[in-house]
Amino acid sequence: MKVGVLASGSGTNLQALIDAAARGEMGRARVVVVGANVPGCGALERAAQAGIPTFLRSHKDFAQREDFDHALLDELRRHGVGLVALAGFMRILTPTFLDAFPHRVVNIHPALLPSFPGVHAQKQAFDGGVRFSGCTVHFVDAGADTGPIIAQAVVPVLDGDDAEALRLRILAEEHRLYPAVIRAIAEGRVSVDGRRVHVRGAPVDLADGRLKSL
Amino acid sequence: MKVGVLASGSGTNLQALIDAAARGEMGRARVVVVGANVPGCGALERAAQAGIPTFLRSHKDFAQREDFDHALLDELRRHGVGLVALAGFMRILTPTFLDAFPHRVVNIHPALLPSFPGVHAQKQAFDGGVRFSGCTVHFVDAGADTGPIIAQAVVPVLDGDDAEALRLRILAEEHRLYPAVIRAIAEGRVSVDGRRVHVRGAPVDLADGRLKSL
Repeated sequence: MKVGVLASGSGTNLQALIDAAARGEMGRARVVVVGANVPGCGALERAAQAGIPTFLRSHKDFAQREDFDHALLDELRRHGVGLVALAGFMRILTPTFLDAFPHRVVNIHPALLPSFPGVHAQKQAFDGGVRFSGCTVHFVDAGADTGPIIAQAVVPVLDGDDAEALRLRILAEEHRLYPAVIRAIAEGRVSVDGRRVHVRGAPVDLADGRLKSL
Repeated sequence: MKVGVLASGSGTNLQALIDAAARGEMGRARVVVVGANVPGCGALERAAQAGIPTFLRSHKDFAQREDFDHALLDELRRHGVGLVALAGFMRILTPTFLDAFPHRVVNIHPALLPSFPGVHAQKQAFDGGVRFSGCTVHFVDAGADTGPIIAQAVVPVLDGDDAEALRLRILAEEHRLYPAVIRAIAEGRVSVDGRRVHVRGAPVDLADGRLKSL
């Protein structure tokens, strides 16, 4: 399964996918193209470093959101992409894009959705005084972090943490969870029933003081 | 520390407090009075069974919410209550009540707040397709399940669950967490810093496939 990654930032989750694939941990899934909307962002550099084709389309060059989405679609299709993985992509995709990849656009969010959608989720969680946070991989819909949940991982907020410590603890789980979900999709183990998603062969696991669903 | 419990329903969390105290697990805290707003509710029966004084004040008998709250306050004060624990109490308390017990009114909610506030939280979580849910003990403010979080416990949503199975799994954690929090408050180990609450001597624990902060 050919995966296209869309990113806007430093691309650490993209790197996790590249590294997981190199270790053989993504099954038949592999990143074949990386698109970004921010010139010079780290994700583009990481892709180039890994020898993965890239494209840049700035949303500022398009009058309509749909036109931007069409431009992204053209590039992804040109590379035969079957699954789109957002990795710190800071644009909301329109139905124009999403309808072209039904249940084939995924995102990772650094909170236990539906808590703390939107930006700065880790700081929202820290300032909100929750005892646990984590990350969520979900199918993307037209809302902001509202699509059906595929998998989550839980981490504690510890005494002595600051927001950055929490961010890094969550990030480590993101880097593990995202490749595992993409592998499961590539292996045909993920099915969607309304808002509930079933993943075959993914019992809830308990490891290292963390709970994870994949 | 004399604890007054307010309830509207079956009172299983009240029973958990009574049982924990009987086992010596609530430290110096003990339930001295139980108030309810629903005639014949299970909580009143459980209190009577345990030999704990009860009172009934129906919100329907009061034109103003503040008048209802004053009636509750009168009874609680008469019993020398120092901490008010809501246990399935289905009324929103006004500042009239809350200002009389600053940071001394607690509630338990069957979800990982801020996810799924309000009624039917377990079904909301199940239908929402989350991989983890749990329960939250928090200080009560004038909102619905919005006050500062004291402790949480996490449980997984398992394949094959229905909403009732999830409700029962969360309930078991509620019965463990609520007495532990009340004990910590009674022992002076809980301090509030805005939205963030600190509990001394409460490291995050990992037990039996669950994560808990107390």
